Amino acid sequence: MALDVAEAKRETRARGSVEGLIALAAGDMTAVNALIRERMESPVPVIPALADHLIAAGGKRLRPLLTVAAARLAGGTNDAGIKLAAAVEFVHTATLLHDDVVDSSNLRRGKTAAHLIWGAAPAVLVGDFLFARAFELMVETGSMRALGVLAHASSVIAEGEVLQLSSSHDPNLDQATYLKIIEAKTAELFAAAAESGAVAAGADEGKISALRAYGLSVGLAFQLVDDALDYGGVTEDLGKNAGDDFREGKATLPLLLAVARTQGREDAFWRRVVVDKEQTDADFKRARELILGTGALETTFDLAAEYAEAAKAALAAFEDGPWKTALQDLADFAVSRAA
Amino acid sequence: MALDVAEAKRETRARGSVEGLIALAAGDMTAVNALIRERMESPVPVIPALADHLIAAGGKRLRPLLTVAAARLAGGTNDAGIKLAAAVEFVHTATLLHDDVVDSSNLRRGKTAAHLIWGAAPAVLVGDFLFARAFELMVETGSMRALGVLAHASSVIAEGEVLQLSSSHDPNLDQATYLKIIEAKTAELFAAAAESGAVAAGADEGKISALRAYGLSVGLAFQLVDDALDYGGVTEDLGKNAGDDFREGKATLPLLLAVARTQGREDAFWRRVVVDKEQTDADFKRARELILGTGALETTFDLAAEYAEAAKAALAAFEDGPWKTALQDLADFAVSRAA
Repeated sequence: MALDVAEAKRETRARGSVEGLIALAAGDMTAVNALIRERMESPVPVIPALADHLIAAGGKRLRPLLTVAAARLAGGTNDAGIKLAAAVEFVHTATLLHDDVVDSSNLRRGKTAAHLIWGAAPAVLVGDFLFARAFELMVETGSMRALGVLAHASSVIAEGEVLQLSSSHDPNLDQATYLKIIEAKTAELFAAAAESGAVAAGADEGKISALRAYGLSVGLAFQLVDDALDYGGVTEDLGKNAGDDFREGKATLPLLLAVARTQGREDAFWRRVVVDKEQTDADFKRARELILGTGALETTFDLAAEYAEAAKAALAAFEDGPWKTALQDLADFAVSRAA
Repeated sequence: MALDVAEAKRETRARGSVEGLIALAAGDMTAVNALIRERMESPVPVIPALADHLIAAGGKRLRPLLTVAAARLAGGTNDAGIKLAAAVEFVHTATLLHDDVVDSSNLRRGKTAAHLIWGAAPAVLVGDFLFARAFELMVETGSMRALGVLAHASSVIAEGEVLQLSSSHDPNLDQATYLKIIEAKTAELFAAAAESGAVAAGADEGKISALRAYGLSVGLAFQLVDDALDYGGVTEDLGKNAGDDFREGKATLPLLLAVARTQGREDAFWRRVVVDKEQTDADFKRARELILGTGALETTFDLAAEYAEAAKAALAAFEDGPWKTALQDLADFAVSRAA
């Protein structure tokens, strides 16, 4: 059965980890987190309260970790690297706040989404505030190049989000467009996070573009696995938010592959649940069975694993050392993680 | 009767005009508008469609006009000045898109608000896109100082919007907080628009801060008059959107003054319509009568006129000439305009 094959195959893959990176970067991240707390302050109480709700909930801080690690690998962290890492997390937090309003999400990082507590209006405006604060931090670094990287990433992210909205409820979306969407909405910020870290460290062009390429591939792997995990991964232990993409009609790769592989057989089902948005509670279970049964989930994980390999390959030019190892492990972690 | 007094007093004030500035800046604004069109393009069709809906609707482009005029007065326009003017309009457009979602507004620039045509989600995301594109334009100018000015203005604007949200439905809001709100949400961008134009022109510190002070005062005058015009100004010819602030429970100066001046007499009325948000169609008429009858509208216009004078005074250090005259007229126009 496809489920077992996928599970077995997954077991053979490298078990990545983010723990090594977290340990190595602990000192730098203490400085980044202090700066995040300092710069989300405002005399308007709703702003730090709402921002803190999301920021204190944590998450792994993968993007600022990438900035810090890229800077370390490319020469060393400094004040600019720390500031850019905090700016990257602010850009990310702003997009999360806006995404949750846009998607009407209920949960974020295991907590009630901010817009459900404070309302959509403050969530949108605090997102704007954090976005602006991110640019103030970038200005302080004095690096116009890093500003260019992150400003461009920000417009690409917004473009990707709009493209995703325009493409939802289309069960026949071509895979190229799907990949373009996840590259824009997710991988671009991973790429910019790593690139700006390298820029802050004063790295040469070769290292800057290698770290950008690494970030892009890791970001693609992460989003592919995110999209797979939304169907509960290959285990029966479904995550808390499993099914969100399905209920929102998001045309993610597992769904697109399953639709293509059941063509002529399940067209009416997909049309009803994706195009016509008529779903019963049982439909997610059925969709998941089709996605598992057709090997769509396995293919999605395979593609993620390919991007993880590409990410590791992009680091070839760097000398071996703890930071390189930590970034290699992070690439594997993107694929092997459970949530 | 207070209405006649206000009307008579208003007639004695300088009749400002924006026409002189528009004519003088026509060449520069052709370049600004071409750049705006070019940079709102995207391969994702919803983005230029939605942006164009708002941008083509026009408005007077006061903020980029300020950038261009400040640059001209301070030394001359150049590529950086044109780019900053376009960036300022993008920042403004982004805030309009988000504000209309936040306020659930129906109309913008006489057209159906974008979020009612495309939905709130694309309106939020296209706002983010334009905001990011604004920063890309700023990066192209190479002026870190202008970037700092506009990044700071952007966070101040968001802070002001949140403060306004937190302060609505409070009929006893102190005037200092009201002024802080309008300075942040409106005047700060006018100030930054003028300041960044002066920075682009390579002006000395004295001229940069004079133009910033001019922009700030003009912005305050504009918003005060906006808030007055929401109660239909002093004529019976109410604007199309008259009453919007009242229905949203916004604590603007005309309302705050009328509440204070009818204390002990109309408390129950204000409590019902502002605090408890229980309004009938007749309540706006009644509120307007109280606002006119207590001279609250007159006081609001008086304060706006004071700011217009302060704006003109800030230009004292500049030599006389057509640009200075045009900016003086703009300050008067902020007060004398009908809409």
